[in-house]
Amino acid sequence: MLTLTNTYARFLQKNPNFFAKENLDLFFQKVLVERNSQLSGYYDLPFAKNEAIFDYLQRNKTFLDSISNVIIIGIGGSSLGTKAIDALLSHQSHRKKIKLRFLEHTDPIIIRKDLQRVKYEDTLFIVISKSGLTIETTSLFKYILARFSLLKKERKKHLLTITDENSPLFKWSKSEEIESVTIKPNIGGRFSVLSAVGLLPLAILGYDIAAILKGASIVSHRFFEERKDNVLKKALFLARNESNYPINVLFSYSSVFRHFNAWYVQLWGESLGKLDMYEQRRGLTPIALIGSIDQHSFLQLIMQGPANKTVTFLSVKNLSQKPLYIPNIRLQGLESTDFVNQTSFNQLLKLQCISTKESIISQNVPVDSILIDSLNEQSVGALVLYYELLTSCVGILLQIDTYNQPGVEFGKKILREKFTHS
Amino acid sequence: MLTLTNTYARFLQKNPNFFAKENLDLFFQKVLVERNSQLSGYYDLPFAKNEAIFDYLQRNKTFLDSISNVIIIGIGGSSLGTKAIDALLSHQSHRKKIKLRFLEHTDPIIIRKDLQRVKYEDTLFIVISKSGLTIETTSLFKYILARFSLLKKERKKHLLTITDENSPLFKWSKSEEIESVTIKPNIGGRFSVLSAVGLLPLAILGYDIAAILKGASIVSHRFFEERKDNVLKKALFLARNESNYPINVLFSYSSVFRHFNAWYVQLWGESLGKLDMYEQRRGLTPIALIGSIDQHSFLQLIMQGPANKTVTFLSVKNLSQKPLYIPNIRLQGLESTDFVNQTSFNQLLKLQCISTKESIISQNVPVDSILIDSLNEQSVGALVLYYELLTSCVGILLQIDTYNQPGVEFGKKILREKFTHS
Repeated sequence: MLTLTNTYARFLQKNPNFFAKENLDLFFQKVLVERNSQLSGYYDLPFAKNEAIFDYLQRNKTFLDSISNVIIIGIGGSSLGTKAIDALLSHQSHRKKIKLRFLEHTDPIIIRKDLQRVKYEDTLFIVISKSGLTIETTSLFKYILARFSLLKKERKKHLLTITDENSPLFKWSKSEEIESVTIKPNIGGRFSVLSAVGLLPLAILGYDIAAILKGASIVSHRFFEERKDNVLKKALFLARNESNYPINVLFSYSSVFRHFNAWYVQLWGESLGKLDMYEQRRGLTPIALIGSIDQHSFLQLIMQGPANKTVTFLSVKNLSQKPLYIPNIRLQGLESTDFVNQTSFNQLLKLQCISTKESIISQNVPVDSILIDSLNEQSVGALVLYYELLTSCVGILLQIDTYNQPGVEFGKKILREKFTHS
Repeated sequence: MLTLTNTYARFLQKNPNFFAKENLDLFFQKVLVERNSQLSGYYDLPFAKNEAIFDYLQRNKTFLDSISNVIIIGIGGSSLGTKAIDALLSHQSHRKKIKLRFLEHTDPIIIRKDLQRVKYEDTLFIVISKSGLTIETTSLFKYILARFSLLKKERKKHLLTITDENSPLFKWSKSEEIESVTIKPNIGGRFSVLSAVGLLPLAILGYDIAAILKGASIVSHRFFEERKDNVLKKALFLARNESNYPINVLFSYSSVFRHFNAWYVQLWGESLGKLDMYEQRRGLTPIALIGSIDQHSFLQLIMQGPANKTVTFLSVKNLSQKPLYIPNIRLQGLESTDFVNQTSFNQLLKLQCISTKESIISQNVPVDSILIDSLNEQSVGALVLYYELLTSCVGILLQIDTYNQPGVEFGKKILREKFTHS
């Protein structure tokens, strides 16, 4: 599913014990302790039964077959994962022709645009928030309630909430007889895509969520049972080089990764940017690019700018069943481009990825690669869990709490004060 | 148009001469020397007459009134600027109902999707490349030529090229009797949006390109004639703190800035990531965010991660003429969100920006702000030239060539070899 390689060895020549078995064993034990502590519940998600999801789908089958729009009201961890997986899989023919939209901006231009032609009759509105108290989500939720009168008895089935067990939003849903599917409170937003937060919308769109979990469980099994150590090694390399390489670039070759990139940026940035147990500012800065287009944007900086970056190449072996070919056309004066004639675009993109990688390696930038066989539910589930595990591992080495986000509370407090005092 | 503020003073207390008049005067002289050297032609663009653009528009008026699609085949500097400006202005009522698309990915999934329902009859294809030898652009161009048989005599008017004077693509266009508008060779891709590269497509979409240039010329006038020094000071602060703050975050409050952010990332990264005259790796790393949504993604890292970032807040005073309000709804158990009831989303977004800024300033992160009165041609032209001037100024201080990109040539060479040897 995922083939993993890296060039780290050349950076460790002066430190041959860096990946010594004792180090890796000790590190692995720490991950095990964290998993067993239930500090985060995400470790268990690949193996969950998800009865509540299937129960909702079954009870509402006729209604769900009738809708042509899903609008998710949710922000950050409540939207990024679903958006990422849908973009990776939406070229598949079994994806239903349902239009998926996200209401997350408090920007009036975009709210107006997103809701322009929406009628409640063929729409399911899904409100996703751990508490129901996220200011963007609740404001947009209220707007939707008013605009479409969704609390009228016969319209309530157009509304679904996904929230923490016993949260204020759950209690409100029960009291209003609105459908609600819950997740465990120890599943943080950015680690929640393999819970109902992601799986329920994805199932409604027609994806095989069991296969997504299957892919994730394989990666989990490889890590915890087979003790494959590539995630540990990558985490060690990145965490121990925090000062040398404070920036981690994810260079994804295909535009279908655009939203996956955004999911990665949140996962990496918000999980790892923390005060450690000694109150030191720690963290690694994520940057996410799309190839080949960002070869014309950011590549120059990687090649000749400060040597403060590692780069991960993410690519797909077979992007498309039906290849598209560059025609064998010769244009006078432009013959120097003819060397790609009769190549498939897939092949061109693959070779662009390889060429860029080689040129970056030649500049002594640490590089690793994730090659996906082909995009399907299983490989995408594997990719998601791979990144979640990697993030946890780096967090353990940085001695931080990977799962909280205390730094964003301050701005929320100031916002509330501005309203109360004005 | 643009109101500029910053918190740099508090970082310069130990260095009161940092912004001394002599320093600024010397620096200004260097910018003047660069402008006069014609190393880059972008400095002159705000004052250009653009006869070729108006001539093309006039001769093809009937045809242009008949089309409903514009597809730009171009990558990097040939697409990012136009995309950015259109996204900033497309909510205006005088923007024609023409669908604008960009063919730039060599990704077969996206090519297929983008061209799904395209018919040549109501489409203008614009090929933009300085030389015509950009591999992505030429491959996609050949694909379009074959798919829509655009070289048939009666179909040629559906094709337009924008390219360097006397480039291979220009010569080919002439020989095929295809319309072509040229730009000066000393206008690099990422500095070209105020040339025909951006202005011609934008004019076709119905924008007032004279007003865009007017905005740019005002900023140029303030810098060169009125000798306002805020751009110089910002450049000095950022360039002299290259090691302390290697990362510059642009935090743009409104989703309409999404493509402007991408334009900024290219401009900053590709211009400034260079070997300097002593062969040292120099540069500043751009990161671009959207508020409020990235408060739920990247903000935590700025607040508590390594102190290696400066942050620029970009926001709009009045986003929308017709305000949208958060309804006065009280939901049981969720009353703690009621403090925003009856506020406009515009006001909420504005206060979110201010609150986030205050919380970041409290963490001693250097912050500056660009406040735009309202989004229109003139203010957007001003914003573009402001960033271009800032980039030039930083480049001068880093002692690099801001306008070339030698680092990306290596990967292109490897790509060509892979084809020739396989």
